[in-house]
Amino acid sequence: MSESIKKNEKKIDLGPKIASYPMPVCLIGANLGDKANFLTAAWLMSASISPPRIAVALNKGHSTNKGIKEHETFSVCIPSEDLITAADYCGLVSGSKTDKSAVFDVFYGKLGTAPMISECPVNMECKLEKVVDNGEHEMFIGEIVSTFTEEKYLTNRAVDLKKVKPFLLSFYDRQYLGVGEPKARAWSVGNSYKR
Amino acid sequence: MSESIKKNEKKIDLGPKIASYPMPVCLIGANLGDKANFLTAAWLMSASISPPRIAVALNKGHSTNKGIKEHETFSVCIPSEDLITAADYCGLVSGSKTDKSAVFDVFYGKLGTAPMISECPVNMECKLEKVVDNGEHEMFIGEIVSTFTEEKYLTNRAVDLKKVKPFLLSFYDRQYLGVGEPKARAWSVGNSYKR
Repeated sequence: MSESIKKNEKKIDLGPKIASYPMPVCLIGANLGDKANFLTAAWLMSASISPPRIAVALNKGHSTNKGIKEHETFSVCIPSEDLITAADYCGLVSGSKTDKSAVFDVFYGKLGTAPMISECPVNMECKLEKVVDNGEHEMFIGEIVSTFTEEKYLTNRAVDLKKVKPFLLSFYDRQYLGVGEPKARAWSVGNSYKR
Repeated sequence: MSESIKKNEKKIDLGPKIASYPMPVCLIGANLGDKANFLTAAWLMSASISPPRIAVALNKGHSTNKGIKEHETFSVCIPSEDLITAADYCGLVSGSKTDKSAVFDVFYGKLGTAPMISECPVNMECKLEKVVDNGEHEMFIGEIVSTFTEEKYLTNRAVDLKKVKPFLLSFYDRQYLGVGEPKARAWSVGNSYKR
């Protein structure tokens, strides 16, 4: 590394840490045998647009991982704030010991083995495409085959987050946070940036 | 699929769609040659805890992808709301045509080739570990070697999102959203769930 590489003495290095940023809480649905199971997760992201893919990282100890591999399908269900207690419950108890199939009203889509949640405003039904090994965690990348919602969550035919009312996980302080107000237009406000 | 699989007739299938959920906006730093470059992104997630890994999905057309592969390092920089214009700007112009190295005050950590942003409250310096091909996008999985912040963003020695003031992308309506108020304790409120 060159001597000229610029450091910043004001910065503190916390060391290798899981990042501090808000992540959307979801419920990952998978059948265990023929029974629906749901696991609370917040490590998920879009992985491509066309076809739409979604990725979720789960600790290898979860029953859900086995279910996803068994059926090669899973769902990503977005709960609203009013489901916060039931959603948190699904992260506190393991599907290996507790039957979570009756926590929600369950439905299925065209894949037939990815359980989804009637109470959730948005449910994405996914076909497993890849499993990426990340040590103690593994990442499941799935192709979204259907996105289920209801008329009441749409504005101009698109899912409206103000109606969905998703919530976020702040990992370090173990808080669920709401989604805040609009701040600016994306792919737009930067046009006013002057160097 | 068995006849007994339960459907939900109230649900509308929007078809294969990128999910509608709020994602944290970040700036991905990579050197292009020896020059710092930053790309706005919102498809990122934690991928493991120990060691801490982070994953980001980027369209293959970006210069940033080349820079990450060249140096096998990158950074994930979390901007606060007051950087929203500059952050959006970095998503509007390509590093192949526009030098973005002077948009922010840049610093480097121990890897020496992952540029970070002095103005950002949180900067994670990452060593590239895996590239996952997802068609038009590729996912970069990195091990976090350092997390840089400042005293003023900490509460009880942990990064405090209320001080960081990150913002979120709502993909479909192209809005940047703030982070809202605490709603409940995670890994806790579900204890009150009664079946």
